Amino acid sequence: MEEDGKVKVCKTIKEVRKAVAGARAGGAKVGIVPTMGALHEGHMSLVRRSVADNGATIVSIFVNPTQFGPAEDLGKYPRPFEADCRACEAAGVTIVFAPEAAEMYGKDFSTYVEETKLSKGLCGASRPGHFRGVTTVVAKLFNIVGPDRAYFGQKDAQQAAVIKRMARDLDMGVEIVVMPIVREADGLAMSSRNAYLSAREREEAILLSRGLAEAERLFEGGERRAAALVEAVRKTIAQAPDAKVDYIEAVDAETLERVEMIRGRTLLAVAVFVGKTRLIDNAVLEP
Amino acid sequence: MEEDGKVKVCKTIKEVRKAVAGARAGGAKVGIVPTMGALHEGHMSLVRRSVADNGATIVSIFVNPTQFGPAEDLGKYPRPFEADCRACEAAGVTIVFAPEAAEMYGKDFSTYVEETKLSKGLCGASRPGHFRGVTTVVAKLFNIVGPDRAYFGQKDAQQAAVIKRMARDLDMGVEIVVMPIVREADGLAMSSRNAYLSAREREEAILLSRGLAEAERLFEGGERRAAALVEAVRKTIAQAPDAKVDYIEAVDAETLERVEMIRGRTLLAVAVFVGKTRLIDNAVLEP
Repeated sequence: MEEDGKVKVCKTIKEVRKAVAGARAGGAKVGIVPTMGALHEGHMSLVRRSVADNGATIVSIFVNPTQFGPAEDLGKYPRPFEADCRACEAAGVTIVFAPEAAEMYGKDFSTYVEETKLSKGLCGASRPGHFRGVTTVVAKLFNIVGPDRAYFGQKDAQQAAVIKRMARDLDMGVEIVVMPIVREADGLAMSSRNAYLSAREREEAILLSRGLAEAERLFEGGERRAAALVEAVRKTIAQAPDAKVDYIEAVDAETLERVEMIRGRTLLAVAVFVGKTRLIDNAVLEP
Repeated sequence: MEEDGKVKVCKTIKEVRKAVAGARAGGAKVGIVPTMGALHEGHMSLVRRSVADNGATIVSIFVNPTQFGPAEDLGKYPRPFEADCRACEAAGVTIVFAPEAAEMYGKDFSTYVEETKLSKGLCGASRPGHFRGVTTVVAKLFNIVGPDRAYFGQKDAQQAAVIKRMARDLDMGVEIVVMPIVREADGLAMSSRNAYLSAREREEAILLSRGLAEAERLFEGGERRAAALVEAVRKTIAQAPDAKVDYIEAVDAETLERVEMIRGRTLLAVAVFVGKTRLIDNAVLEP
């Protein structure tokens, strides 16, 4: 460990294992916040919760190549590493784990963890292989760090559901904590990808959360037909000339199976290309 | 824990986690021997090695449904549970973990661990899904028990290679120990499935190890052509009227890729149906 209050940055698996063992030696609980860096207030809400819950918090910063499709934004994904480390340090993070891709995936890497049901619809349908990449890297991070708790954002609702399922199915013994979406003042869900938006696209991007808010208003007024709620979102987003809907769906919040009537806890989820940037957002409806 | 020298039998994940935590409390290293029961001298050689190496040994006895194909012998696989427990107790095993299938796989189980290269040839080609079942259950057992070391038999050479690869790729932090094949006096590799053989089939089954021994003799005499070694095995096994070869292959012992000339450590592996019983055996050739 470094001197008090200084975050320790580890680049190798061996180093981070040793640092975690040191942090845990006094019996501290360990929380992990897996990220791809470019930390914003959404990430920091997870970090603060982990620092409050656990004696030691590990933030992993790793732009994981296996969860990007060949035509996706792996190369241009933002990597403001120094700023991320400062933010972690200010928040009381114990260890930043920031491996290179070659440290995580040797040249003959050949083992994957795959969730085969929840991961197939929604983002899984338009990003084949994405969730296999996510579950594989999260399984690796869990095995490397051995956390008691792991923190994920509700913004990536399908990811959170898939990881909960993985942790349960494979008996990982890690408590998965899912934290609410953090939004900009005008409602836009925080995302590292918002940085890609032009001024005009940034204006149009507001329509995702506005469409969801409109559907929530209808739901609170008694509307229970999924199609009517989806249509409300679609109509709102249609006001944006540069927006192209990938999906708008109402699904069971746990199984992610499509529903026709809202009878239990339901996820209303949207994915929209605004220009070339793919944005996602969602609302949870509870009757 | 039970009184000294008595093996503790756990049926649930919760129970075994607690028992392992107890066994580990004094700082003992933990070894696991994953089995499907019907323990023979092959298994017991792993058990004895684990008991010698570690402060606590867990033997899992679980006829894992996800590694059997629909037309395979899941239903008739032998389950002499009481005798297995007595053998474990006599060998100094700390805990027997013997869950029901429903304890390991809930009805909406949907997450699998899959090795995608080494698992595709040899037995993987004739038993699709088999190794996905094996890696998934072994990953679960590792997560439940948290062993320092795990013991597997060289008889299942491909399984051992696949599990080594999985443990490496997913950073499981478990040392995989592979122990030599244990044979009957006449050379037949020990297997729980030998119990299926009729007296006549039992005679014919000897030809697997005899064929491999013949190939080893040629190899020691300088033969380096894989095809010639494979042919020697084939000719020997052809003497058995009830034997039907599934495969006879010479592959790199680590990557399991087929080789034409024996230049490095090579696995000469065979799978043969003798009547309805599928038997496997292998020899390692080191130039």
